[in-house]
Amino acid sequence: MARLIECIPNVSEGRREDVVAAIAAAAVKAAPGVVLLDRTSDPDHNRSVLTFLGDGEPLVAAMTALVEASLGAIDLRTHKGAHPRLGAVDVIPFVPVRGATAAECVSLAKALGKTLAERFGLPVFLYEDAASSAERQNLATIRKGEFEGLAKKMQDPAWKPDFGPSAPHASGGAVVVGARAPLIAYNVNLATADLAVADRIAKAIRHLSGGYRFVKAMGVKLEARGQVQVSINMTNFEKTPLHRVFETVKSEAERHGVAVVGSEIVGLVPQAALVAAAGHYLRLESDPGPQVLENKLLERLA
Amino acid sequence: MARLIECIPNVSEGRREDVVAAIAAAAVKAAPGVVLLDRTSDPDHNRSVLTFLGDGEPLVAAMTALVEASLGAIDLRTHKGAHPRLGAVDVIPFVPVRGATAAECVSLAKALGKTLAERFGLPVFLYEDAASSAERQNLATIRKGEFEGLAKKMQDPAWKPDFGPSAPHASGGAVVVGARAPLIAYNVNLATADLAVADRIAKAIRHLSGGYRFVKAMGVKLEARGQVQVSINMTNFEKTPLHRVFETVKSEAERHGVAVVGSEIVGLVPQAALVAAAGHYLRLESDPGPQVLENKLLERLA
Repeated sequence: MARLIECIPNVSEGRREDVVAAIAAAAVKAAPGVVLLDRTSDPDHNRSVLTFLGDGEPLVAAMTALVEASLGAIDLRTHKGAHPRLGAVDVIPFVPVRGATAAECVSLAKALGKTLAERFGLPVFLYEDAASSAERQNLATIRKGEFEGLAKKMQDPAWKPDFGPSAPHASGGAVVVGARAPLIAYNVNLATADLAVADRIAKAIRHLSGGYRFVKAMGVKLEARGQVQVSINMTNFEKTPLHRVFETVKSEAERHGVAVVGSEIVGLVPQAALVAAAGHYLRLESDPGPQVLENKLLERLA
Repeated sequence: MARLIECIPNVSEGRREDVVAAIAAAAVKAAPGVVLLDRTSDPDHNRSVLTFLGDGEPLVAAMTALVEASLGAIDLRTHKGAHPRLGAVDVIPFVPVRGATAAECVSLAKALGKTLAERFGLPVFLYEDAASSAERQNLATIRKGEFEGLAKKMQDPAWKPDFGPSAPHASGGAVVVGARAPLIAYNVNLATADLAVADRIAKAIRHLSGGYRFVKAMGVKLEARGQVQVSINMTNFEKTPLHRVFETVKSEAERHGVAVVGSEIVGLVPQAALVAAAGHYLRLESDPGPQVLENKLLERLA
């Protein structure tokens, strides 16, 4: 498989397990090369997060089938849940994992958006890297007002969708489609119980307060361990790599006389993020990615 | 694919490209799950090194077909080449890459050896981790005397094969089958032209002279770069990891007032070797291997 892209549709159904399973199955059935990596449902949120992996065009076919199945099974007019949402399928990001560029994912998002509008009469908003304006980059801004406020919101010409009609789909609302870099949830644990130290380090590394461009961070207390943690979201590990952030945390911790106990990655991580860290510390003169045995196999599998 | 094993048969044909291609094709055809990762022929050695990847039992089927095709196409009685060899297929190591143990690879080597003896009347010697005695661990010892001296060598009861008849196959000689850990060829380049420094560091890290158990090393002059290199063979990266060897080279180089310019991996490397280095330097509290996105995909592909 030359190109690997992740698609993580968020579906507004987290209680009827059979419905979510059928929606996932419809997606996989529509595109045999696409695999479902993970499916997590939250009954309180009444929402499921599905993680698919595959090449671009098969993913567009899989997501089209997923939306069709979701529209047939979910009615937002009677839907309740703690998590904000605009539609039966709420948001679909394309994420380049391997051998794919951000620009390719933007193209795929637009192709999917166009298809969803034409096939199902759904209004489609493009977000993040695919956004048509700075205002639409942020998902929360697009989603503000939720399904219940959508008809009114869309009367404002500023909220004309990127594809599809200027009014919500009766039962399905609207869908937000986009492209973004892979996100890595990364935490560094410190040998102190003083939250102020973690907070200061978080402040030093995060974009908001003068730190790295693709870092969000905050201090968190780990009661059971009697330690604190710098809890980090790495929003673009290619441009702001793990090892650089780790070294800065270590250096800032030292300044407070505090040792770094360890670190942890939460959830999935692209291989390249770890291989880049190995390459940095071992001072490898070229990217060893192409030499990784498992990658030779991935390239040969369809 | 839950289990990934590498098989690297060395075939005594490095000149007739079509013959080598047919032999490789026979192996892949016999076991659809097995992929050919690499094929390198050397006309002077008159020898080809083929790298296959797959699960255990399919690899045994593939190697059986490869030996059958080789016996049909190669006659050691007329074979000439610079590289020492005992048979038409000279040596077949099984190497655990992912989710497989050394013990499993030993079992596979024995299963293949038994099959080759029964099916083709080939004498089979087991080597390295599969060896039946300490004396047979070393391939060079088994191969000493080559095909031309084999009939005489096998008259000695000490050289009764592990499987098959006590005399060579007329045209195919004998085959050496075994199991070993993955080998990583790893070089560290130094900011000096003084070979003595690289030699001293090689001596410090290699098993032979008091260094790490699974390290072979020597100093090499890089004329074009005006630098020297510590050229390393890592014979078991799980027990002697890359990062530990790199750090020792760096520390020893410092003692000579010499900087480490960079390092390089030659050929293929299991993902786990690089992920372990990342884990070490980032102080990860658990092995991130299971969280690597690409591995989720590998697990799902047959």
